Amino acid sequence: MKLNNHAINRVLIVGGTHGNELTGVYLVKLFQQYPELIRRYTFESLTFLANPQAITAGRRYIDQDLNRCFLQQDLEDITLSNYEDLLAKNINYLYGQNGKYPVDFVVDLHSTTSNMGITIILDNDQPFNLQLAAYLISLHPEIKIYNSGKSGRAENGLRSRAKFGMGIEVGAVAQGVLNADLFLKTQTIVYATLDYLELYNQNKLPAFSHSFTVYRYMEKIDYPRNEQGEITAMIHPQIQFKDYQALNPGDPIFLTFDGQTITYAGESSTYPIFVNEAAYYEQRTAMCLTQKHQIKI
Amino acid sequence: MKLNNHAINRVLIVGGTHGNELTGVYLVKLFQQYPELIRRYTFESLTFLANPQAITAGRRYIDQDLNRCFLQQDLEDITLSNYEDLLAKNINYLYGQNGKYPVDFVVDLHSTTSNMGITIILDNDQPFNLQLAAYLISLHPEIKIYNSGKSGRAENGLRSRAKFGMGIEVGAVAQGVLNADLFLKTQTIVYATLDYLELYNQNKLPAFSHSFTVYRYMEKIDYPRNEQGEITAMIHPQIQFKDYQALNPGDPIFLTFDGQTITYAGESSTYPIFVNEAAYYEQRTAMCLTQKHQIKI
Repeated sequence: MKLNNHAINRVLIVGGTHGNELTGVYLVKLFQQYPELIRRYTFESLTFLANPQAITAGRRYIDQDLNRCFLQQDLEDITLSNYEDLLAKNINYLYGQNGKYPVDFVVDLHSTTSNMGITIILDNDQPFNLQLAAYLISLHPEIKIYNSGKSGRAENGLRSRAKFGMGIEVGAVAQGVLNADLFLKTQTIVYATLDYLELYNQNKLPAFSHSFTVYRYMEKIDYPRNEQGEITAMIHPQIQFKDYQALNPGDPIFLTFDGQTITYAGESSTYPIFVNEAAYYEQRTAMCLTQKHQIKI
Repeated sequence: MKLNNHAINRVLIVGGTHGNELTGVYLVKLFQQYPELIRRYTFESLTFLANPQAITAGRRYIDQDLNRCFLQQDLEDITLSNYEDLLAKNINYLYGQNGKYPVDFVVDLHSTTSNMGITIILDNDQPFNLQLAAYLISLHPEIKIYNSGKSGRAENGLRSRAKFGMGIEVGAVAQGVLNADLFLKTQTIVYATLDYLELYNQNKLPAFSHSFTVYRYMEKIDYPRNEQGEITAMIHPQIQFKDYQALNPGDPIFLTFDGQTITYAGESSTYPIFVNEAAYYEQRTAMCLTQKHQIKI
């Protein structure tokens, strides 16, 4: 069998980048218990629980969000030494492109309190990633493809250390909770991704449509706040759980605690995602606004 | 106006007994900003954020669950001095029956990741509490009445310090998240409760049906676990979000990570609540089983 000239040799499946997102934590534990589930012929599959102390504590992180710690300049900055700073440096030593076990492809498993269903997160427009997305959507038309490139994750996220990679973001599920349905769906997408990499390596990819929708990150917007920085409004009931649905100028977006509706003041339609994600309150993000693009590759 | 001989003189509305249950936290802040919302003629309305450090940290508690710290013997034990131990003692000094501002009625605001809709929690069968429940259900037939008496909350919960009281438990909502719809419904039930107390004090209660359903706590059941104490299964998809629905012997209850269905082995039908509550994983509770009773008073 002649392998692809650009074969993927090592794949890393990561759970617990955020310690209270249990889907990934328990999927990785399952794969560690039954490695045959993720074994393929043409590449090595590794698993990794990224933030062990946060997992034990049942919290997103100990000192700071690990998935913001991978800027090249931060990895090189010896003065940065809190728990997640050190984790990030260690992950880079292990799996980065100049590390001990350089990773060609990383699958990073996340969950969200937003109603994002099964979302594939790509951090860039590389044809390799887009082809994978097209393949997955041909098998599972219900999944959504989100390009996070402009959000910063392409530079500071864990995935930035691998040659290629993607996130799987599933919701709505509360922090600290396992939803069996979303667990099973995530598992299915992981297997489909490994199958893709196997077929790619073997030059055996089947024909599939290369036309699909991508939601591209544009900006994040914060909750209304008072002078003390406290939020003064909630996500409006009309857009709660309405991720990926059009938000048009004049549509309700927030409801103040004293009952006033605030409408969206943008100039054109947008497609919000991460609507009411628990972890984003402190990051001053009520939702991320995306633009919808039709992609042909 | 002649007041009821057993008039309620002081009412305490509590939020943030669990710091990451935001509905109560922000309702109490709203009432503190607009005290006229909870002002009535015949009693004094106080508000209180019970666990300030946990609220700031966005966590359920700092050292231990505050809503388990109110056993009389623990309040009297001078050796108990972690953060929540001290909070509990202080709350008892302030609002307990021998405290500075003894409270006749407490409304304790909670939320849950379980699909419990709007649940009124009563800690005992006192006629005063049951009449209030009957009144609320006559106005809002969709609410559920849960008697937690046998769970321990009647002895160790914050509400045990007041003469009378109830919890409002709303869900499903993730920890650290505000759901506007559930916020508004909780607010409505708080107002209806204050209205009831006002009518009660004035001997002006209208006629309403005194027949309704109560779900009574029987026992809690844990997740399947391995020898290391780690969970080996999830809530089965068929009962996820199915709080208050009959679980019969032989029905699916858990799904193991490797795909095996575990069925309910009880001998008779039960009505699970707190199904997949995030905070209960560490308390070794997958759900609480209740019995359904028709009450006439």
